[in-house]
Amino acid sequence: MKHRFTQLRAKLKESLAGGLAPQEAEAYQHKAENQKTTGISRLQIRELLMQTVDQIFSAKWVLPIAPENIVLENHSVIVNKTRIVDILPTKGVAEKYTAKEKIELSHHVLMPGLVNAHTHAAMNLFRSLADDLPLMDWLQEHMWRAEENIINAETITIGTNLALMEMIRGGTLCFNDMYFYAPETAEAVIKAGIRASLGLTILAIPSGEMKTEEDYFKRAYRDYARAPKSDLITWIVMPHAAYTNSDHSLKRCLALADELGLRLHAHANESLGEIEMDKKQHGKSSLQRLDDAGLLNEKMLLAHMVHLTDEEIKLIQERKVHVVHCPESNMKLGSGFADMPRLVNLGINVCLGTDGAASNNDLDMLGEMQSAAFLAKGLHQDPTVFHAPQILRMATLHGAKALGLEKEIGSLEKNKSADMIAVDLSHYFTQPIYNIFSLLVYAVNRFQVSDAWIKGKCLLEKGELKTIDVEKILTELNCWTSEIKRFSA
Amino acid sequence: MKHRFTQLRAKLKESLAGGLAPQEAEAYQHKAENQKTTGISRLQIRELLMQTVDQIFSAKWVLPIAPENIVLENHSVIVNKTRIVDILPTKGVAEKYTAKEKIELSHHVLMPGLVNAHTHAAMNLFRSLADDLPLMDWLQEHMWRAEENIINAETITIGTNLALMEMIRGGTLCFNDMYFYAPETAEAVIKAGIRASLGLTILAIPSGEMKTEEDYFKRAYRDYARAPKSDLITWIVMPHAAYTNSDHSLKRCLALADELGLRLHAHANESLGEIEMDKKQHGKSSLQRLDDAGLLNEKMLLAHMVHLTDEEIKLIQERKVHVVHCPESNMKLGSGFADMPRLVNLGINVCLGTDGAASNNDLDMLGEMQSAAFLAKGLHQDPTVFHAPQILRMATLHGAKALGLEKEIGSLEKNKSADMIAVDLSHYFTQPIYNIFSLLVYAVNRFQVSDAWIKGKCLLEKGELKTIDVEKILTELNCWTSEIKRFSA
Repeated sequence: MKHRFTQLRAKLKESLAGGLAPQEAEAYQHKAENQKTTGISRLQIRELLMQTVDQIFSAKWVLPIAPENIVLENHSVIVNKTRIVDILPTKGVAEKYTAKEKIELSHHVLMPGLVNAHTHAAMNLFRSLADDLPLMDWLQEHMWRAEENIINAETITIGTNLALMEMIRGGTLCFNDMYFYAPETAEAVIKAGIRASLGLTILAIPSGEMKTEEDYFKRAYRDYARAPKSDLITWIVMPHAAYTNSDHSLKRCLALADELGLRLHAHANESLGEIEMDKKQHGKSSLQRLDDAGLLNEKMLLAHMVHLTDEEIKLIQERKVHVVHCPESNMKLGSGFADMPRLVNLGINVCLGTDGAASNNDLDMLGEMQSAAFLAKGLHQDPTVFHAPQILRMATLHGAKALGLEKEIGSLEKNKSADMIAVDLSHYFTQPIYNIFSLLVYAVNRFQVSDAWIKGKCLLEKGELKTIDVEKILTELNCWTSEIKRFSA
Repeated sequence: MKHRFTQLRAKLKESLAGGLAPQEAEAYQHKAENQKTTGISRLQIRELLMQTVDQIFSAKWVLPIAPENIVLENHSVIVNKTRIVDILPTKGVAEKYTAKEKIELSHHVLMPGLVNAHTHAAMNLFRSLADDLPLMDWLQEHMWRAEENIINAETITIGTNLALMEMIRGGTLCFNDMYFYAPETAEAVIKAGIRASLGLTILAIPSGEMKTEEDYFKRAYRDYARAPKSDLITWIVMPHAAYTNSDHSLKRCLALADELGLRLHAHANESLGEIEMDKKQHGKSSLQRLDDAGLLNEKMLLAHMVHLTDEEIKLIQERKVHVVHCPESNMKLGSGFADMPRLVNLGINVCLGTDGAASNNDLDMLGEMQSAAFLAKGLHQDPTVFHAPQILRMATLHGAKALGLEKEIGSLEKNKSADMIAVDLSHYFTQPIYNIFSLLVYAVNRFQVSDAWIKGKCLLEKGELKTIDVEKILTELNCWTSEIKRFSA
């Protein structure tokens, strides 16, 4: 008996230290719990099983996202070494876990951070600079001119930080960015402790210092090489769009992605004008061009996708392309209404993005969720379309999946990274409380996002940003605003 | 000279005390300023002209709404005896006005309170109770059953207060309410100090205690008689809709409105189903029925108006009917997209409403402005449609006009009531600042509404409600939530 006890204790300790495979550890724990076999007292078993972890998050509601459509009331998420190790009813926590840090979220929903799958973060510099204008006037006369004259390593850092502040405050903990100065963006991202997918952007048309296609590829390799490395950052190859790239350049993008083992991200079928442009210049549609270059596959994220023919929908379904829906930007820029329920019903992975603050004009994923639901229901004249739990998955797990991060983030599950937000529902904006999903999609205000953690590290505490110096960024911004204003409408 | 001086001083004093007509007073002030004529020193003139008022509101930006498309930088609004008496550059204030109270709004826009032209306030009780359901299931199985079982004088007061809290916090200072227990609603409205248009609701179908058409009219007269009187409240006759009233009852509504000198408000053409119902049962469209009953005129506000034929648009244009656009409710309930730019281009007065919190699910007029702009631009595939200044007028002055209150509220102009809100733009959600209109419509969050005044009286101060006891209301609500939950989806 003595021998078996010692052996069991050793095995249990080994398992708690993470030295055993989960199934094996579970088997030993089960054995230990059966005191008749082992002769160990219940108290001894508790002591043996008691595990010291880094953090215990006890929330009124835990919304794990996976499994689907489930709200766990009075549950705790146990975090150790940046990862979720357990999710269990709070009343059972004290006898299993002891933690260095205990976080009480008594009026809150604890859920995965939101994934903003398409944005141009540093364009926060240009918010409210030019609105309500015809698309090409807005783009060419204001945005491109402002970018040409204003964007540099310094302003990129300011603009990116403005966006990071806004995103973290609103519960977005991972974003897919398509812009310039990727290494400087990476630096800001790492400093803030947020998660990002950063792009090596390719256009075959001149812009700033980039004169030729070759320049863009050179820059992509250089940026990739000189950027600071971090597990917070996923690199991605970003051909801006079909209509802004030659066929040759599109093919080189694929080669670049293959060489570096990266995914691809592009704008596609945002407006009718650009599709016509491709047809005129290349004799085929934008999506056909992307497909001919080998770019349509399960590693490609296409943003917007407002105007699609039946054949095109079939093509992206077959190619397992991921689609980023940006409903607010599409409406505000007059691009049109994207029919996303149709794509979702075909099993296409659809996630959500805000686009940049110059077009939207905010990076509010909670607002984007609401707009996505409203648009789908209005378009189909059917209130059951895009129900709230579905929208929440699009804004979390589906975004993670599109970025190839679904094993790491997007839901609260064992072994995933502790990337989480707390949303305080005690405010009268979200009272009474009958349905957590409904409140999160249709009623909650982003100021109610109270706390945020990435890998267990706190980025937002009771509404205060912990990793970005807000005053410093706003002061730096102030030095540039009159300069930027020259490009206003 | 002495005589002229004394006479002038007397006249000026009279004018400052409000005893002279504005033009006459201005003429005397002009005379006094011309010191060569009067021989009075500049200092003496200043003293003579110095006026003691109740309040001076000095704001970084004043958005008067009328005149159109204007932002006054570093201006002050002078308020005396509940009314706006002057708007002038802040640097000129000290030599003209001295006040008991000075309000500094150094990072704020000062603008008229928002007008929510269609809501069902007490339905805040049912927020998140039933969402994403087919319309008739939602209405009959959840809303009507909950109303039948829950709505009484006590719950109406709780529900109304929940709505008032939400509206004031988000800058809505006047709302047009269609619901039950109007006298109890009036009491809550007066206590909170908010402005409302309250309805004498008429349906010709049984609901609760109301069994017959006659019951509804009896209640309307009784409610009107027993309700507390206040200049904050405008009464309005509310036939629920054509499809829920007989022709006879519609005609009686007109007679009731004429007798009491009130305007009319009804739902119309919200869903295709109800229009079909009218055609089937009455052999004509809902609008034709309303017109035949004499209800279509410049005193009628029709909410929703999603589905309209060319003839119907012409009819409401000719009849000068006011239209309340509720884009979020129309989308969320799957009713469809209302084409409001088309109506506005024909000179029809279009204002905005949130509908009730059971369908929307918030009473956020700032969000509704954004949705109205997005929907219009998306629908017309034209980003110039419904530009931000236009949307702001719809949410303020056009709402006031629809309710017949345009001489009292809806813009910041001399002699209008001091119904104003301050919106703090210093938060990074609205930085940088290039265009005030754009930021208010596309980027601002309702938590940034910091202060609100009606008739110069403070209802909201630095985000805190001054006239409603939030904790008390939430505690009272808590006694009812499990009872209400029985009717959830």
